[in-house]
Amino acid sequence: MIDELSALERIRERFQKISKAVSLGIGDDAAAVRIHPQRLLLATVDSQVEDIHFIKNLISAKDLGRKSIAVSVSDIGAMGGVPKFFLTSIGFTRNEDAKFLEDLMDGFQQGSSEFRLELIGGNLSTSDNLFIDITVLGEVELNLMVKRNGANVDDIIFVSGTIGDSALGSKILRNGKKSEKDRYLISRHIVPMPRLMLGRELAKKRLATSMIDLSDGLILDLERITVNHGLGAEIYVDDLPISTHYKRRISDFLKNPYELALSGGEDYELLFTSTEEKSSEIKIVSKQLNIKITEIGRVTKKPIVRVLDKYGSEINVGRKGFIHFVNKNPQRTQRIYKES
Amino acid sequence: MIDELSALERIRERFQKISKAVSLGIGDDAAAVRIHPQRLLLATVDSQVEDIHFIKNLISAKDLGRKSIAVSVSDIGAMGGVPKFFLTSIGFTRNEDAKFLEDLMDGFQQGSSEFRLELIGGNLSTSDNLFIDITVLGEVELNLMVKRNGANVDDIIFVSGTIGDSALGSKILRNGKKSEKDRYLISRHIVPMPRLMLGRELAKKRLATSMIDLSDGLILDLERITVNHGLGAEIYVDDLPISTHYKRRISDFLKNPYELALSGGEDYELLFTSTEEKSSEIKIVSKQLNIKITEIGRVTKKPIVRVLDKYGSEINVGRKGFIHFVNKNPQRTQRIYKES
Repeated sequence: MIDELSALERIRERFQKISKAVSLGIGDDAAAVRIHPQRLLLATVDSQVEDIHFIKNLISAKDLGRKSIAVSVSDIGAMGGVPKFFLTSIGFTRNEDAKFLEDLMDGFQQGSSEFRLELIGGNLSTSDNLFIDITVLGEVELNLMVKRNGANVDDIIFVSGTIGDSALGSKILRNGKKSEKDRYLISRHIVPMPRLMLGRELAKKRLATSMIDLSDGLILDLERITVNHGLGAEIYVDDLPISTHYKRRISDFLKNPYELALSGGEDYELLFTSTEEKSSEIKIVSKQLNIKITEIGRVTKKPIVRVLDKYGSEINVGRKGFIHFVNKNPQRTQRIYKES
Repeated sequence: MIDELSALERIRERFQKISKAVSLGIGDDAAAVRIHPQRLLLATVDSQVEDIHFIKNLISAKDLGRKSIAVSVSDIGAMGGVPKFFLTSIGFTRNEDAKFLEDLMDGFQQGSSEFRLELIGGNLSTSDNLFIDITVLGEVELNLMVKRNGANVDDIIFVSGTIGDSALGSKILRNGKKSEKDRYLISRHIVPMPRLMLGRELAKKRLATSMIDLSDGLILDLERITVNHGLGAEIYVDDLPISTHYKRRISDFLKNPYELALSGGEDYELLFTSTEEKSSEIKIVSKQLNIKITEIGRVTKKPIVRVLDKYGSEINVGRKGFIHFVNKNPQRTQRIYKES
């Protein structure tokens, strides 16, 4: 069995960027290549695999189609870019029928019009388990791209929206006992809203020193913009943006209410860093776009992510919430890991 | 169960090209989009799925890695383009180990250097069956792109190299009784050589009115450049370029020696049309590149592909050799179908 994290490390080692045309190779939300004097082409691929990323009877084909696009589009947004085109490679099993295809296409069409990108090509095959691969191509101006590696010590760490909702929604879905009140949490899981407009605005106004979309959980994704580049972070658990829905429901599942907010994946919110003096401008963007943006911590020198309580004491969050495992009957829908 | 051909039709209907930026949407070897004043970006995705496209103990991980790239690169060549970058999405099962990964990467590296393109991004996941998706991005000058739909009545039909070798090699591999003498045929199946240089040269010299790479068998792919655009074709079975290896071995498998040459897939040769007056120029290219190019027939008005013997009588080739079926224990390795 292949350990995905070490596999990634090896692939990265072996395929370091080699030509000047590649502005950004493996290891960011999307790759960026120079094929135009002023603009970069962004490219990212993501998979939805049955029983790994989704369970077929827990998501409609339409939602699955839309979500497949949304998660890749989110990577483009995290670069400050604009999605333009997508290609899909689908492996159907013997269980899908014409109705399933129509519904999946409904979802593709929904995603296309919602995120304004066009299907330009694809490949159909047969497989033991259903998989949907989506490659999204996008664009960003040469000087506006926001990467994972631009943070500096003392930068403030911001996150959009609320976190943990999707992971909790997934738990509720898989748990089976859901009520009408859970609709919001479940919808955060099934119908994620990539923060395209926000990512674009932050890039255009140069308000982010680094940025990533939250796909694999706050702490892991925070490590990717800090620890992976020799920096660290302190985050203040009391400042984490938690929805009222999350607050109401989390105690049915976990003693520690913050565990899922810290480590649950698939929020597709933006996590970014900025300098202190840009704070007021960020507040204005938040107001203009009507998107909640919360200051949750600071970038530090020591290359470790620490979670602090209101007294400044470190909370041991362990790594149990993280998602590097492979589970055929997963307790939650997660990307096993994802790097571009 | 989904019928792939009708599925494709539906997808095409629903996602017709809508913006001016898309020069070529679903339905050619690669999609082409305009993101530069003089050049088109080409994009194509292709899958290798375990037990559908390959059987794990019949191909080394290195060859599999290289082949995954080769088959997508071939689509770029068939547009007259140059491959530049690729992304991969891999679904590993529990059976692959670190050695497998290294070998697969060896194959990726082999393909990268052979076809001169760079890995820029990817995604790893877990799956019940191993799959490798490769998206290749390439480029072609606006006015040089060769599409599937440019043939005219009376154009001559040409094919590069020899055909049927790969399908026969696959039969020998799966049959299990192979000898040293079968090395060439098996290698045509395991180590396909996309005709990048030839495709490029034909495009640069404007020698092809339409072009496609042979992935799904001569007749099916010929239909794609003729019948699909309201034209037909006559091909002369005695003119088909058949290797001596193929001639020697085919009778062990089939009574009709041409069946596999007509319908076997994965040749990755180029099938193209040209006007009569370009014939001599095509011969020169053939000599310069040292690639055999054979005239095999003509484009006709009646939208049907007819196979003729040396007396001009039509041979009934049936459709039994075609490859639209899905077979979990396939007798040959085939792409189920492929459109971009």
